[in-house]
Amino acid sequence: MKKSLQEIAVYLGGTVSGDGEILIGGLATLDDAGDGQLTFLANPKYAGKVATTKAAAVLLGTGGNTHGKNAIFHPNPYLAFAKLLTLFYTAPAAPRGIMDGAFVAEGVKIGADVSVYPGASVGAGVTLGDRVILHPGVVLYPGVVVGDDVTLHANVSVRERCRIGNRVTIHDGTVIGSDGFGYAPDGTSYYKIPQIGIVVIEDDVEIGSNCAVDRAALEATRIRRGTKIDNLVQVAHNVVIGEDCVIVSQTGISGSTQLGNHVTIGGQVGVAGHIRIGDNVMIGAKSGVAGSVEPNQVMSGIPVMPHREWLKASGLVPRLPEFRKTLMTLEKRVAELEKELAGKSSR
Amino acid sequence: MKKSLQEIAVYLGGTVSGDGEILIGGLATLDDAGDGQLTFLANPKYAGKVATTKAAAVLLGTGGNTHGKNAIFHPNPYLAFAKLLTLFYTAPAAPRGIMDGAFVAEGVKIGADVSVYPGASVGAGVTLGDRVILHPGVVLYPGVVVGDDVTLHANVSVRERCRIGNRVTIHDGTVIGSDGFGYAPDGTSYYKIPQIGIVVIEDDVEIGSNCAVDRAALEATRIRRGTKIDNLVQVAHNVVIGEDCVIVSQTGISGSTQLGNHVTIGGQVGVAGHIRIGDNVMIGAKSGVAGSVEPNQVMSGIPVMPHREWLKASGLVPRLPEFRKTLMTLEKRVAELEKELAGKSSR
Amino acid sequence: MKKSLQEIAVYLGGTVSGDGEILIGGLATLDDAGDGQLTFLANPKYAGKVATTKAAAVLLGTGGNTHGKNAIFHPNPYLAFAKLLTLFYTAPAAPRGIMDGAFVAEGVKIGADVSVYPGASVGAGVTLGDRVILHPGVVLYPGVVVGDDVTLHANVSVRERCRIGNRVTIHDGTVIGSDGFGYAPDGTSYYKIPQIGIVVIEDDVEIGSNCAVDRAALEATRIRRGTKIDNLVQVAHNVVIGEDCVIVSQTGISGSTQLGNHVTIGGQVGVAGHIRIGDNVMIGAKSGVAGSVEPNQVMSGIPVMPHREWLKASGLVPRLPEFRKTLMTLEKRVAELEKELAGKSSR
Repeated sequence: MKKSLQEIAVYLGGTVSGDGEILIGGLATLDDAGDGQLTFLANPKYAGKVATTKAAAVLLGTGGNTHGKNAIFHPNPYLAFAKLLTLFYTAPAAPRGIMDGAFVAEGVKIGADVSVYPGASVGAGVTLGDRVILHPGVVLYPGVVVGDDVTLHANVSVRERCRIGNRVTIHDGTVIGSDGFGYAPDGTSYYKIPQIGIVVIEDDVEIGSNCAVDRAALEATRIRRGTKIDNLVQVAHNVVIGEDCVIVSQTGISGSTQLGNHVTIGGQVGVAGHIRIGDNVMIGAKSGVAGSVEPNQVMSGIPVMPHREWLKASGLVPRLPEFRKTLMTLEKRVAELEKELAGKSSR
Repeated sequence: MKKSLQEIAVYLGGTVSGDGEILIGGLATLDDAGDGQLTFLANPKYAGKVATTKAAAVLLGTGGNTHGKNAIFHPNPYLAFAKLLTLFYTAPAAPRGIMDGAFVAEGVKIGADVSVYPGASVGAGVTLGDRVILHPGVVLYPGVVVGDDVTLHANVSVRERCRIGNRVTIHDGTVIGSDGFGYAPDGTSYYKIPQIGIVVIEDDVEIGSNCAVDRAALEATRIRRGTKIDNLVQVAHNVVIGEDCVIVSQTGISGSTQLGNHVTIGGQVGVAGHIRIGDNVMIGAKSGVAGSVEPNQVMSGIPVMPHREWLKASGLVPRLPEFRKTLMTLEKRVAELEKELAGKSSR
Repeated sequence: MKKSLQEIAVYLGGTVSGDGEILIGGLATLDDAGDGQLTFLANPKYAGKVATTKAAAVLLGTGGNTHGKNAIFHPNPYLAFAKLLTLFYTAPAAPRGIMDGAFVAEGVKIGADVSVYPGASVGAGVTLGDRVILHPGVVLYPGVVVGDDVTLHANVSVRERCRIGNRVTIHDGTVIGSDGFGYAPDGTSYYKIPQIGIVVIEDDVEIGSNCAVDRAALEATRIRRGTKIDNLVQVAHNVVIGEDCVIVSQTGISGSTQLGNHVTIGGQVGVAGHIRIGDNVMIGAKSGVAGSVEPNQVMSGIPVMPHREWLKASGLVPRLPEFRKTLMTLEKRVAELEKELAGKSSR
């Protein structure tokens, strides 16, 4: 596919500087772009590279320095570039239907234009929307409901009766709806509490690979519209994650905790159970959140404190040996002063 | 299924208060329960909800306030409720046999009433006990031995010769018996140490989804009777986990470490290799355990210290900047005092 | 298989002490070895066990104390023992070909002596080298290239166009090439940045089970020759890991970060994005690496500091309550001194 710089500018809602007639056939980074390729500058740190890139044209923030290159100005060049990547590189594959080697049980409702690959398993009473793609090894347990335009990558499994909305993508190996971790101590051992709830994944959610999202004990673990979850994330039973949250890799959220909307959680964070994280909260990587957090806070540390405090406090930890030494020296000096003063007084 | 309140009380070993003849058809939370449903109060925090619940009856601790509701008194209402969940909601499915699309190699011994779903793979020389359920995508490598009443969920894999006891449940995507992480440095690179041992999972163990339990170098990695493991947990080679332990999500236990019985480990904990954790030890979430821990301790922190000490110490970390300031001020004040006193002395 | 002690010594490049004619039929630990078995001493801590082992012979460091046992001296007994494990226990299985129940798409190039198990899926245009083994549930998306002598264990998936070198082993459930975690905020929600790059795994790499290695946004996430990765590790998009690195379980490396050669990273470490870790760096378990690290450093802590400093500093954290008390007492004593001295001065 080739498009003129002018066509691309119109598509993006930007404006051309230089030759709008040149044809663009692909996209690349500032360093790698060459003939017929468009590149972009999102991070001002790399502004110097605009002068030296071999790209045919550059996407720049409105009013950026073109260094004499052909350019498109756009208020959000990063978003604009992402939209071009979609335009140039993500043509949807033709639907394949139910392929030989796919296992589809009785009583399944299947929408239009689906692709069910060999080795995928669709249990009894499942509902699949239109344009659903189930890659090899996907397992849908009985009663699962999947909306339209959903892609489940290889070896994803979705347990009994869980519900997945529209335009959801789940990457390879992720498990939706395994049993929540609940046991009642019966004196010496543990009695399993049946987990009879489900998981509900709302529209426009994306979940990375090898995550685990547990089903609720009685009702629903819920991931709301637009939330994005990275790889190897744990979501325990009865958790509710709000809309447009971003949860980075290897984070774990304990049972019954509720996240508001637009919450951002860094990598390897642990969030305790039965707490509430307010809207727009940001939690720094590797933090431990032991209690509820009010909206609009930026927090870090184990346990978390306001991020600025954490920056100061954590920077002082390496100086503890020095502080200890100063403290001991001061104790001696004060004792010396006390002795001296006592001597004077008794004189 | 419907049962009278009186029948349920007898089943649980509890006593009825109010109308024992009413029929119960299901279970729900205090908030959600309605006509014909039984609910329960385990956490005294929610005692007030007993007065307002719309449930037909309430399970209460012995002597609890019924607020005039029909009730069953039981010494452990949480455990009792779990038993009712099992009674009402977990009727075992009829066995399906070896279904079309399942792959079963030569020389496999298969017990009575098994269900092997399409897309499950059973390697040569495997032994399956009675009532084993292998969901789609389960892979048993050659020589695996599985006991009675075992459920392996979708895409679980069990590597060559590993042994799984009776009444074991393993959730989706978990890997039992992948190679332990062992290499001998040969100067510049690493030479792989073949991992020829196995994993032994004893009776009544439950393991969550997407965990990794590595096979031993020479002998056996072992998870003893009754232990419960959450999702995304790493168990390295030659580890021995005792009976009735509870290991929460995303925890990792390094090679050759031994856990006693009734050990509880919170989420995202790291346990070093070649150490011993005594019976009844509890480790707080996100801790790092660098050395052995005596029995009956509660520990937290990185590295761990007694939990009460950690509560105090970690609470002071945010105050380090304040302490530093106080320390600097004190230094100045002491220097001032010293100077003053020296002045006096020289007078 | 049986070999004389003398034959084994020659194979290893070691020297015999005692009876070189005895036959060795297997290997075991110092504690477990018996008749006809060879054992080894690598850790001097266990030197006393050489006297009591029931092994037929012992592998010892050059000049070690044989306690009168038959022995082989070798400069690196651990490496030598690993080589014997390979010799005695790892005969390669006969190739099985494309087995019934394997799904192989059109236009696939397949080398000699491969084994593709039932339930494995090979997408369109894939290339497989010689002696490749694809266990059940392995999914290769279209355009994947796999070198010679590669083993992919059960339920591994490799996404579109990713490339795997020679002599690579990937354990069960690991995902290579899922989408990098990249979104452009568009005001209220997130717009997905298509991840059109790939993952390149070079020769002699081994990756544990249930890991996630994301494909690059535009170019390649790369794991270089000889690197070993443990279970449940996260490698984000555009990361480059150098040669002969060792990455322990549950560690996460954020986007675009570059590791040099011979880097060793302990378990549960988090490494920030867009930084550089120099050659031969070692990072202690559970650390958080927020910025670039110069070559040849040993670092620990959150955030990391030189390991020796961390040992001292972290050891003082539990003493913070004591320090606080001392500080408060000192403040009082200094105030008392100041008062006293002021009194004297005014007199």
